[in-house]
Amino acid sequence: MEIAIIGAGATGLLYAHQLANIFRVKIYCKREEQRNLIHKEGVTLIDGEQIMNKKIKVELFSDETEINEDVLIITAKQYSLESIIRNLKKYQNKTILFLQNGMNHITYFHELQQNKIFVGVIEHGAKKENDTTVYLTGKGLTNVAPYNEHHTSLFFENWDSKLKDFPIVMEKQWYPILAKKLIVNAVINPLTALYKVENGKLLSNKNYLITMETIFNEAFSILNVGKKEEMWNHVTKICTSTSKNHSSMLRDMETGKKTEVDAILGYLLQEGKKAKKELPVIHFVYHALKGMENVRMNE
Amino acid sequence: MEIAIIGAGATGLLYAHQLANIFRVKIYCKREEQRNLIHKEGVTLIDGEQIMNKKIKVELFSDETEINEDVLIITAKQYSLESIIRNLKKYQNKTILFLQNGMNHITYFHELQQNKIFVGVIEHGAKKENDTTVYLTGKGLTNVAPYNEHHTSLFFENWDSKLKDFPIVMEKQWYPILAKKLIVNAVINPLTALYKVENGKLLSNKNYLITMETIFNEAFSILNVGKKEEMWNHVTKICTSTSKNHSSMLRDMETGKKTEVDAILGYLLQEGKKAKKELPVIHFVYHALKGMENVRMNE
Repeated sequence: MEIAIIGAGATGLLYAHQLANIFRVKIYCKREEQRNLIHKEGVTLIDGEQIMNKKIKVELFSDETEINEDVLIITAKQYSLESIIRNLKKYQNKTILFLQNGMNHITYFHELQQNKIFVGVIEHGAKKENDTTVYLTGKGLTNVAPYNEHHTSLFFENWDSKLKDFPIVMEKQWYPILAKKLIVNAVINPLTALYKVENGKLLSNKNYLITMETIFNEAFSILNVGKKEEMWNHVTKICTSTSKNHSSMLRDMETGKKTEVDAILGYLLQEGKKAKKELPVIHFVYHALKGMENVRMNE
Repeated sequence: MEIAIIGAGATGLLYAHQLANIFRVKIYCKREEQRNLIHKEGVTLIDGEQIMNKKIKVELFSDETEINEDVLIITAKQYSLESIIRNLKKYQNKTILFLQNGMNHITYFHELQQNKIFVGVIEHGAKKENDTTVYLTGKGLTNVAPYNEHHTSLFFENWDSKLKDFPIVMEKQWYPILAKKLIVNAVINPLTALYKVENGKLLSNKNYLITMETIFNEAFSILNVGKKEEMWNHVTKICTSTSKNHSSMLRDMETGKKTEVDAILGYLLQEGKKAKKELPVIHFVYHALKGMENVRMNE
């Protein structure tokens, strides 16, 4: 079974390396420099003391690239999806798995409906070291659900049965798993990026904790997901278990990359508008972070 | 006529230097080191190319200090007022002028009612260079109004007639001049401290401008002062004319000092509570800045 992984950030490199244990994998990346490096050096996964290098096929991805694999895993960031979807529209009957944060990618699915679409949420901590190397900073699960309930795929059955070290859990409903991840990302990522602190500071600093609760309350009022107290416990549990980490949004700020603020807070603001609910603090933080991006990008 | 200036920050040094042109002035400061330096070196005012040094009397200030001057000008920050008020309570019939930002100092006035109390708002830009030197970065007015309408003082008449270069404007009502200054401080200071940018960026960055309007709307809903559009024009005018400045709150953040966030946003939150009005974004920004102070002070 042949797998195409589209996007070669931390998630793309990690999944390519792991799935290559049982599938034939090809990475599709955007930059020629990275293509050449992966071609020459393979992909290296660093997991504690273990350093594991693997040869993996690699190809440049553009609007015209012809993808022959039957299974496509999209690990590119939300803000790169639009151009990727233009390419994917022409396919039929492929299994396509989206591994994005946030919810905005859902809006593209109507353009891909001749395929079998799945969404996933990853619990692994992964940090890209360079174009060919990724650190595994925390092990977790991959939660996957079909976007159309009746869809199944042999790919996931094989993954589940043959790759016990990199577990996948199949769920029936896609909304709860994405919403549960979104509320965690909406609370932790924007605030750590705004304050420039590691995740744990949101809990240990009593004033930051108050602002965290404020964002949680607004986000929860929009995302119809679980019971409030349970969901708050879930958010603080993740924040505790990742207390020393810099969130992906903070890292993006630090390294001058575009952040996922549109996919996370921007999505909540859109939904708030539809539901005619005010989200004043999320609106404020959204513009504060967009403003910081602007300052940075004009420097 | 003898004047006591209590507090030897940028404002205290500037006013001591200017008023010493026509009055006998004594500075009261908190730290022995600064007392000794002012005693030895005098006070230096730097205004563009001009460097002007003056000998000025100086004394340490504590709860027990006996103040003999008839006119007291309080230039200490809001958060230092409580201990100063303990000393001032014992006096009668002194002219006391408060030059603080914010509004919290009003709450102490009932303890001083046997004196003639005035409040002032300063438009000068002043930056402390070291314990004896202050830069005049922008010239303006001193707007003063009595806290009890019928009060007058010969001191202000002398100032007005003899010190044309450092003008004072007497107003009848204290509330409008403090509220007008407060709304400027509430919009510019917290956001520049949060984003760590000079004042002008709030206007030139379209996302920051949106957050500025949000804070303005909430602050205006509490402060019953003037017409909304006029007040917004006033705020943006000040922001434009100080576009290259670092606000006092940003400077306090940068130099590890306590900020005036309690006197500014804290006051608005108190008033909001009394009026049963929600100020969600000011509440958020207040706790974000208090959290940053905590992080900094625990480092």
